[in-house]
Amino acid sequence: MNEKQKIYKPKPISGFPEWLPEERVAEQRWFDHIRKTFESYGFCSIETPSVEEIDVLLAKGEVDKEIYVLERLHKDEDSDKESRLALHFDQTVPFARYTAQHFNDLVFPFKRYQMQRVWRGERPQTGRYREFYQCDIDVINVDNLPITYDAEIASMIYDTLEGLDIGRVQLRISNRKILMGLLQTYGIYSQERITEYIRLIDKLEKIGKDEILIGLKLNLKLDNLDECFADSFIDLASIKSSPKDFSRLLHDFIARNDVIARSNSDAAIQTLNEGIDELASVLDALSHLPEGAVVADLSIVRGLDYYTGTVYETQLLDIPEYEGSVCSGGRYDDLAGQYINKHLPGVGISIGFSRLFGVIKEHRPELLVIGPKSPTDILVYTEDKNEAKLANDTARSLRELGNNVEVYHTVKKWDKHFKYAKNKMIKTICYPQDETNAKFKNVETGEENVQALTEWKK
Amino acid sequence: MNEKQKIYKPKPISGFPEWLPEERVAEQRWFDHIRKTFESYGFCSIETPSVEEIDVLLAKGEVDKEIYVLERLHKDEDSDKESRLALHFDQTVPFARYTAQHFNDLVFPFKRYQMQRVWRGERPQTGRYREFYQCDIDVINVDNLPITYDAEIASMIYDTLEGLDIGRVQLRISNRKILMGLLQTYGIYSQERITEYIRLIDKLEKIGKDEILIGLKLNLKLDNLDECFADSFIDLASIKSSPKDFSRLLHDFIARNDVIARSNSDAAIQTLNEGIDELASVLDALSHLPEGAVVADLSIVRGLDYYTGTVYETQLLDIPEYEGSVCSGGRYDDLAGQYINKHLPGVGISIGFSRLFGVIKEHRPELLVIGPKSPTDILVYTEDKNEAKLANDTARSLRELGNNVEVYHTVKKWDKHFKYAKNKMIKTICYPQDETNAKFKNVETGEENVQALTEWKK
Repeated sequence: MNEKQKIYKPKPISGFPEWLPEERVAEQRWFDHIRKTFESYGFCSIETPSVEEIDVLLAKGEVDKEIYVLERLHKDEDSDKESRLALHFDQTVPFARYTAQHFNDLVFPFKRYQMQRVWRGERPQTGRYREFYQCDIDVINVDNLPITYDAEIASMIYDTLEGLDIGRVQLRISNRKILMGLLQTYGIYSQERITEYIRLIDKLEKIGKDEILIGLKLNLKLDNLDECFADSFIDLASIKSSPKDFSRLLHDFIARNDVIARSNSDAAIQTLNEGIDELASVLDALSHLPEGAVVADLSIVRGLDYYTGTVYETQLLDIPEYEGSVCSGGRYDDLAGQYINKHLPGVGISIGFSRLFGVIKEHRPELLVIGPKSPTDILVYTEDKNEAKLANDTARSLRELGNNVEVYHTVKKWDKHFKYAKNKMIKTICYPQDETNAKFKNVETGEENVQALTEWKK
Repeated sequence: MNEKQKIYKPKPISGFPEWLPEERVAEQRWFDHIRKTFESYGFCSIETPSVEEIDVLLAKGEVDKEIYVLERLHKDEDSDKESRLALHFDQTVPFARYTAQHFNDLVFPFKRYQMQRVWRGERPQTGRYREFYQCDIDVINVDNLPITYDAEIASMIYDTLEGLDIGRVQLRISNRKILMGLLQTYGIYSQERITEYIRLIDKLEKIGKDEILIGLKLNLKLDNLDECFADSFIDLASIKSSPKDFSRLLHDFIARNDVIARSNSDAAIQTLNEGIDELASVLDALSHLPEGAVVADLSIVRGLDYYTGTVYETQLLDIPEYEGSVCSGGRYDDLAGQYINKHLPGVGISIGFSRLFGVIKEHRPELLVIGPKSPTDILVYTEDKNEAKLANDTARSLRELGNNVEVYHTVKKWDKHFKYAKNKMIKTICYPQDETNAKFKNVETGEENVQALTEWKK
């Protein structure tokens, strides 16, 4: 080491999380489980580049996420000729672009999962990252996609989250057509106006009834409608029930709503009924899940104007430290209309992986079983320098039997390698005797056994 | 779909590769194999953020890689206060920074692998990407690290590449101390001057002997030395042999070199001998590998001034389309001196994953066994809409038995789901009969069998 070298002491970068090896072991266990679950439903993996052209990211118009643009440190004359690139802020836009670009090479219905990092240049807050993993699943088809997929996606998400062993999972499901039908009976048809009401209802749980009522009344006034309709939105959004009661509660709501009763818009009533039927069929197809795992919750509408039917949120009932929905999504009509002249309806959902992992790590580390600092099963050690070859051969034999094996190459006083095994939580130390036998020591109990290598079991 | 929507037709971004689902399946198989091999040697995974502070990236001085800097699309007053971030261009700098930052939380010797994307804003050429995966392994220790690790790293790399089934793998190994010892007997001690000679020898294979001789002679003149020494460098670098012949060839070289014979610099001779001994011990510890898998090759010196002992390159003997070394690395004295006042010697190697995958995909697609477009084992289908529940239940039961199962939810004329299975190369279609039995059809042969779900085997 050059002692005169100037030292630049690095510090963590706010919003860019980084884990220690033992935490990474837990993170890998999560990723492996999620991938396995997604694949058990036959979803295939895709990865897109970390960047898209800015024109692709903004093809639908301005986005409200903070985008990171790439600039070369040393620009040259070519830099300006190239299209500007930016890091993707979600996986939906890249997925839509991917589908459009490779349309002819894909088999539809196209079911994909995607587990990549995304970037948002937002001000970092607790639990909000600037770089984080998302785990997305979507299924899309050309022209139409059966409603059965909406239940399948919900079922996948339940299996996925339930298998993480972080307590009870509750899927909260609704269908936007119900609120849209109601709005239409009031005479509100414009997509832009509908979006206004949806955004307000979406904030109900966060902001509270009183504030939202004020907002709703203001908008009704704008639409030249009776302010008292505002109560009916709150009335609808207050329906939260088990799958078996939802239908009754919704029909009660309809029965007490004068406007619906008097409505002569067949289209509005049809939208409303479609929403109810679709939601009923999704809930019905989830009847195999345990009681309490699924609720109908009419306050769920999701803020994005993108969704057109089923909408999901997910709550971890035993992790109050996680605010909001851990996994959200829904049904949409048109995945990639901005990139290709094809009608591609779909349904999808996204797990905010890093935020979830970060919250559990901070507040419930016991749920991550953080411990071993490596995947090593066995540490091979020999005190005699001349036995280095025997140590390596033994390690190789144990590896061939499917074990993860380290050799401790430094021959030092006896307790050094033992301390190393203890620190890394390696459970077994192997002292080779000859090519086929060794003494195996249990690091925790101290128990020792001379065994054939082939006899050793985890 | 809004027919009036303006369509922005996306196109591939030069240098940012993206694979189709069936190619991704092959890529995942590679990643899984590499990870499994690394873990079988007890190496742990780490991931660092995609970015580092520019000051961290440039802590050792200017780098010759093109760096991508991040800029927020919409800057605000805070933007200037924050440190500038850039995408990492390799995994060595982030690993060094990680080790320094988390020094007190790590157990040494610290063995880590890292499989992430890196970015270089270079002009894209055939097989050169701007975004690509690298797979790196390193082991570092405080103050000293036994030479046995140099062989272990080589052994890991052999196991890793050999398991990819892309033909014969040849590790070409040398030790820089041999060349450095020779330079020192000529009186060249300055690190800067040594680096000049190393860089020239490193280009020998690429540029050819004549050009390199000119360069060497120029440098010898600069150092006020006899130009005829240039031949001795070429003489040394021409030693390429099996592990068993290397020692004899090297001693022959020494015997015919007058300067070494006359040298009265003990330090120079010691460096030379250390290099020979270390190389001999590494080659010896690799004697379990098949003949031809390892060669001593004194032309391997690596261009970076970072390496101090063992150096590796790797050639795929059956893939001439891959130019150069698929996997290179070596021994270094000081991993993180620019970030922490600790002496951290180590040895490591890096696989240029994406470039290798790209070359094989282009020139030897048959080696990737590209086929299935998803992980699905079984497609469940029922013609009767009323049997949707049965289809879902059957799929769930098959999933619980460890299979990857899709339900084909669209009830259409008979051949539609069959075509879907054929297109995706799904091998089996399952037609549920009741809760526990189904007809299984082999898509390739057309063979059908009614079986209990529990009896079905891949």
